[in-house]
Amino acid sequence: MRIKVLGIGLTKFGELWNKDLLDLALEASSEAINDSRLTINEIDAVFVANMIYGKLSNQDQLGALVASNLGIKGASFKVEAACASGGLAIHLAIQSLLAGTYKNVLVVGVEKMTDHTITEITSALMGAGSQDERKAGLTFPGLYALMAKAHMDKFGTTKKHLASVSVKNHFHASLNEKAQFPFEITLDKAMNSPEICAPFTLFDASPITDGASAVVLSLEDRSLPSGRQVYISGSAVASDTVGLCQRDSLIEIAATKRAAQMAFKQAGVEHQDIKIAEVHDCFTIAEILAMEDLGFCKKGEGGEFIAKGATRLGGLLPVNTSGGLKACGHPVAATGVKQIVEVTQQLRGHSSNRQVSGANVGLTQNVGGTGATVVIHVLQT
Amino acid sequence: MRIKVLGIGLTKFGELWNKDLLDLALEASSEAINDSRLTINEIDAVFVANMIYGKLSNQDQLGALVASNLGIKGASFKVEAACASGGLAIHLAIQSLLAGTYKNVLVVGVEKMTDHTITEITSALMGAGSQDERKAGLTFPGLYALMAKAHMDKFGTTKKHLASVSVKNHFHASLNEKAQFPFEITLDKAMNSPEICAPFTLFDASPITDGASAVVLSLEDRSLPSGRQVYISGSAVASDTVGLCQRDSLIEIAATKRAAQMAFKQAGVEHQDIKIAEVHDCFTIAEILAMEDLGFCKKGEGGEFIAKGATRLGGLLPVNTSGGLKACGHPVAATGVKQIVEVTQQLRGHSSNRQVSGANVGLTQNVGGTGATVVIHVLQT
Repeated sequence: MRIKVLGIGLTKFGELWNKDLLDLALEASSEAINDSRLTINEIDAVFVANMIYGKLSNQDQLGALVASNLGIKGASFKVEAACASGGLAIHLAIQSLLAGTYKNVLVVGVEKMTDHTITEITSALMGAGSQDERKAGLTFPGLYALMAKAHMDKFGTTKKHLASVSVKNHFHASLNEKAQFPFEITLDKAMNSPEICAPFTLFDASPITDGASAVVLSLEDRSLPSGRQVYISGSAVASDTVGLCQRDSLIEIAATKRAAQMAFKQAGVEHQDIKIAEVHDCFTIAEILAMEDLGFCKKGEGGEFIAKGATRLGGLLPVNTSGGLKACGHPVAATGVKQIVEVTQQLRGHSSNRQVSGANVGLTQNVGGTGATVVIHVLQT
Repeated sequence: MRIKVLGIGLTKFGELWNKDLLDLALEASSEAINDSRLTINEIDAVFVANMIYGKLSNQDQLGALVASNLGIKGASFKVEAACASGGLAIHLAIQSLLAGTYKNVLVVGVEKMTDHTITEITSALMGAGSQDERKAGLTFPGLYALMAKAHMDKFGTTKKHLASVSVKNHFHASLNEKAQFPFEITLDKAMNSPEICAPFTLFDASPITDGASAVVLSLEDRSLPSGRQVYISGSAVASDTVGLCQRDSLIEIAATKRAAQMAFKQAGVEHQDIKIAEVHDCFTIAEILAMEDLGFCKKGEGGEFIAKGATRLGGLLPVNTSGGLKACGHPVAATGVKQIVEVTQQLRGHSSNRQVSGANVGLTQNVGGTGATVVIHVLQT
């Protein structure tokens, strides 16, 4: 597989009160199309990823909405798999290119979350969980806290390990002007913030965010004006039960393992080839699980792996240089596409003060719910 | 393009109070998988089409929900484009097969609509319209009524023409045990029923329906146990503005023309080759527009074409032998997949008392909203 990332676009992430969903989608899309040096007429299809806009703002058919507002009359699609919507849209867009049906496609992930009460938003997000989980009154902090507790019990993972994920990602975000929280925090602050759901404090959770991200993908060979060309060489999806209680284990996300195995094989790369990764740190424990389930460290050692700095800029494998979901922000369906944008920028060598030197192979991991859907992509120069 | 339809499955359409969305999806899926003679392990990916379940019942990630409940751990997706969700899911599933990524895929369209108040349902369905249309207080009967009025003004189309669509589709439904309304109606009854929105009476509108439909698609060559093999030879999507007032014309659905042109070209067939069609008769005027925009009759002559019996069983081109959206029912996202199920059954020669003799090439037209998304498929033996 050799899918060119021709263009990338990204809005500011945060509480964007003066922009609506369409504004955000068009801003990121236009930036990606301009970056691709294609004209609007050369875009054959538009894939929109979104989770909660239909529910909270009653606007469906976002594929046609975005496409027609860009002046594109070709095919348009909306794809949803909760927080994995963005990665899934990338995967399906790739299929349409590999099929030879479309030559150049736009993928845009977008979410407008802040225009509603926190109760409405929290309720809407629980659509990513199971009916049993909703009936039990669980929310996502609670679900991931169950996984964190199990991991702590079994492996001795500590609150300090959890906090070190947050501290590292805030440091990375401090170097990213698009981040929702572009500032550093101390370990002390992370650990001693109000507890939201044991063992999590406020700083273990990703925020509610508005934002959009977009990429233009192509099978065609075109030279980019500067920097290295970047292509997607692996794209895989795996599924699991929506409800956490139906799983065999709380200390892993099994779909990550299965999708990663497929993506590595497709790309023809090994773990040691990966120089940078964007993973789904919706809660700090999720980044620890990701390191283990992706095979970057042994099961149970993820906390220590991160705490000792292996995944910080300058470390063995910089992870979430964007600031991750925690500090760059988590506009749900935009996240999976933003991961591709961040890795592409790094592989192009365009990440200025947070550039990972020698980055030539990168990975993204995008998770829906507590692991019902996992999408893995491998990118290379 | 040569995509095998290996299996088909369909639930009863109607008010199914004792079944929830998952029951319906699993019933249709299991029937399609059994029909395909594949095992669960041979299904690589699941595409679920759905419009309003996330909104009304707060369950998202339907791809993973359906896949995991079938015991499938491969890839899963949810696709949405209002009433064109089903056709769109078929199109994307086909891309993944043509890409060579998946060998056998399940597509299931499902909607559970009756568990809510009519106000909630009507409001949810307006997600298929534009923000301006919602603000103006328009509903879909109103939007299609505007198109009907324009067509009547310009071409002299009559209420009798409209009613003849309904009478014909009820006749077809009377031969289909899966139909929501499996009974005939008279022209008099259709024309003299309560007016819901001028010029429409109750019988010009499709109903609120529960139901699911499923197909198993494959690139592989496998012999079906009986009947002819059926394959999809054309699949095309076109987009337009979501809002009707932004279009150039009220008397056509332009995206139908564009998608049909592409699908005919892909399939290498002409209009005269088509022996059967399932089109999107959400309102009677929509079937009249479809006949014209698909090129089966001249613009303005659709009403007379249908009224004179050309599209009735035994006529030149039997249309909506299932009973269509009007009389078979319209579980929104299930409709586009059901169209493929009906045409496949006809091409297999398995449609018993409503079999179109000599049917070897068929077409489906699935419309989102008032024409923002149109998906056309061509099927052949």
